[in-house]
Amino acid sequence: MIDTLIGRLPAGRVITDPDVLDSYARDRTFLEPGKPLGAVLATSREDVVTTLKWATENRVPVVPRGGGTGLAGAATAMDGSIVLSLAKMTAIRELSPADEIAVVEPGVITADLDKAARRHGLMYAPDPSSYEISTIGGNLATNAGGLRCVKYGVTRDSALGLEVVLADGRVLNTGRRTMKGVTGYDLTGLFVGSEGTLGVITAATVRLRQAPKAPPATFAAEFGSLRDAGAAVSAIMAAGCQPSLMELLDRATLQAIDAMRNIGLEDATMAMLIGQSDASDSAAVVARMQELCEENGAAFVAVSSSPAETEELIGVRRMAYQAKERLGACLVEDVCVPRSLLPDMIEAIERAAAKHGVKICTVAHAGDGNLHPVFVFDHGIPEPPPEIWAAADEVFTQALALGGTLTGEHGVGLLKKRWLGLETGELGTEIHHGIKAVFDPLGILNPGKAI
Amino acid sequence: MIDTLIGRLPAGRVITDPDVLDSYARDRTFLEPGKPLGAVLATSREDVVTTLKWATENRVPVVPRGGGTGLAGAATAMDGSIVLSLAKMTAIRELSPADEIAVVEPGVITADLDKAARRHGLMYAPDPSSYEISTIGGNLATNAGGLRCVKYGVTRDSALGLEVVLADGRVLNTGRRTMKGVTGYDLTGLFVGSEGTLGVITAATVRLRQAPKAPPATFAAEFGSLRDAGAAVSAIMAAGCQPSLMELLDRATLQAIDAMRNIGLEDATMAMLIGQSDASDSAAVVARMQELCEENGAAFVAVSSSPAETEELIGVRRMAYQAKERLGACLVEDVCVPRSLLPDMIEAIERAAAKHGVKICTVAHAGDGNLHPVFVFDHGIPEPPPEIWAAADEVFTQALALGGTLTGEHGVGLLKKRWLGLETGELGTEIHHGIKAVFDPLGILNPGKAI
Repeated sequence: MIDTLIGRLPAGRVITDPDVLDSYARDRTFLEPGKPLGAVLATSREDVVTTLKWATENRVPVVPRGGGTGLAGAATAMDGSIVLSLAKMTAIRELSPADEIAVVEPGVITADLDKAARRHGLMYAPDPSSYEISTIGGNLATNAGGLRCVKYGVTRDSALGLEVVLADGRVLNTGRRTMKGVTGYDLTGLFVGSEGTLGVITAATVRLRQAPKAPPATFAAEFGSLRDAGAAVSAIMAAGCQPSLMELLDRATLQAIDAMRNIGLEDATMAMLIGQSDASDSAAVVARMQELCEENGAAFVAVSSSPAETEELIGVRRMAYQAKERLGACLVEDVCVPRSLLPDMIEAIERAAAKHGVKICTVAHAGDGNLHPVFVFDHGIPEPPPEIWAAADEVFTQALALGGTLTGEHGVGLLKKRWLGLETGELGTEIHHGIKAVFDPLGILNPGKAI
Repeated sequence: MIDTLIGRLPAGRVITDPDVLDSYARDRTFLEPGKPLGAVLATSREDVVTTLKWATENRVPVVPRGGGTGLAGAATAMDGSIVLSLAKMTAIRELSPADEIAVVEPGVITADLDKAARRHGLMYAPDPSSYEISTIGGNLATNAGGLRCVKYGVTRDSALGLEVVLADGRVLNTGRRTMKGVTGYDLTGLFVGSEGTLGVITAATVRLRQAPKAPPATFAAEFGSLRDAGAAVSAIMAAGCQPSLMELLDRATLQAIDAMRNIGLEDATMAMLIGQSDASDSAAVVARMQELCEENGAAFVAVSSSPAETEELIGVRRMAYQAKERLGACLVEDVCVPRSLLPDMIEAIERAAAKHGVKICTVAHAGDGNLHPVFVFDHGIPEPPPEIWAAADEVFTQALALGGTLTGEHGVGLLKKRWLGLETGELGTEIHHGIKAVFDPLGILNPGKAI
């Protein structure tokens, strides 16, 4: 069957070699994919249109894909599907410093857009941890967050308009290239975070922002209790300090980092808070944040305003994931709670770990209340054992009980589907499927994901 | 027929007196409403549920309504409809300083929420010009903007979650009470700006922000040309000054203000730019903005950092609409263009005015590229004469040609429907109606509006 698709596309667009194909069928989760028919490496909107028309005619499921860095299984391919990679659509079609916007194709690496913007004194704000390897298209599909979003918002807040190919191959333009606009329903917002289930994004008009003019200043504070660290976070936000990042590391994470590279972890340190200001008076703001940490019980606060020292402090945060991977295979989760409940959520995670005898290391985008509990299990086994799922179930249930959400920035994909109904409810689920049917009546776009 | 509705609701909820009813059937446009069957003054979600169930059973159109301050006709009632006023649902159910959120009913006056937040050092940022008489529900329904949104974003950027009653009376909860969250499609964003065509909002979880700690500083600059004023706007934004408001007034507007209250308007003054900073170093930022105005040809710049002087400078902007109403009846429009094209758009407006022999005064939220050309016509006639519509048509067409949008913050309502297709396109229109049918299959919610 795939031969008819190969015939319609320019030469070299379709991969069918099973070994190569397998790498296009997975994301960064442990999930074992099915066997897709092939992977289309689209280089143009026309390739996407051709692929989707063919898929509609033949009722073949299509799994859109960016950099494959997802953590929820949204890009996991199923048997008999076509993988549609947008990674080769890498043009920055336009970058307007005057209007602070760019028009980009979905395969642009997020960091590359940021670099291009910086040449004009601008930045592309969203910076998921994967931003040097993930694509704008993938970021849009999952409404990616990141470290800077505590100040600058998530991907949705930078998306102004989209060019989308619908399941039947028709091209829809949504949104605008202006800062404001209320014509019609917010279709741009509807596509952002929809994980490829409503259409395939082939271009996006995104908002750029003025890059900070001065180098950032940074602090790292050690706390003897999670409650104290949480109180410091609240105090910093309430003081209007507007940190450009604010990350909390729990003791399990710090131990993992200490084991990998000696950071001189004290026995009494239960949490570390790392914050940054990119304001024009960043040193003064960080001095204020330092004071607030000390007032809230910090045992030690290191402060830096030189780029090298800053790299060292932030480097501790950057090591977190790598350090955990040395401990075992990782299931990375992503709950988000109202900010004031951050300590409660971390304690609930610790209870779940103790109860089920599993290792959980937690890092949080503390200013947003967004936690990444990483469930560690043996490298040798193909997927998380039952006690991990039992602990995860408790973590999700507790996040919802605290007025939180299952996923702050990674998405639902396949991994969180079993808990989805708890958050969206029966009517919400019905509405989601109704909307899905408007865009994709045959249900060929990334079936089984997200909703 | 309405007697059955009256019977189901608590006593006193339904107005049927034609004289009183008429005032519930209009917004702030010139549009002559039809004769509704009655107006329900809902005081609870249960009243809304009861009304919508009855409307579904009886296939009666429902026109939801907040403060009635709309400028696009979205709340204009039609013959045989029920007006559903949410203005009496005024509870602030919750205000959490720690989490910087509030849960409010739709009838809360926008300024009242802001005041309640300020008691905790917070603010509710969106401030449409009507914010002392408009409601949160109306702001959500139209995705209202305002002066501060150049820095803090529009209503959508402050809406985290909604409680919505669907056409059939079922209650849907969307979104969250966390800063981030990507579970499911962005239904919250879909309802915001949908002008009551998808459901009736009965509660909203909104984001609050830290209120500025120091008083704002303000400048007013006079320019001999629109191009110079436009260049100053671009320079101020490019310098990263982050004005908390930045308003441009054209000569026609200044003349109207000068005629009402002598402001000493110079013959050579073609435009005035009024800007404000609420940063912690606001005086320094305004000094920088003053410099940039002067570098870009400003003839005179007044600067103030005392509250009284600030009120005087901002007062000029506040007088604009009142001054125009003295000239005649007003059709207030609302196009938005990429910021760098602001001078081009104002020139296009001036060309349209000259060509069709009509009076147009323009005020712009300059930092956003959002212009309000006000078309002035004789008080004595019930609606704008053909030359006004011809000029408006030219303004809309030109806004779209410049990559702009028909409406930056007022909405489509009835007034802009005849141009809507030009912006959304045929496929976009089809998708909008498909989505509408998911939420409101019988089409009873505010039919004929918005889409």
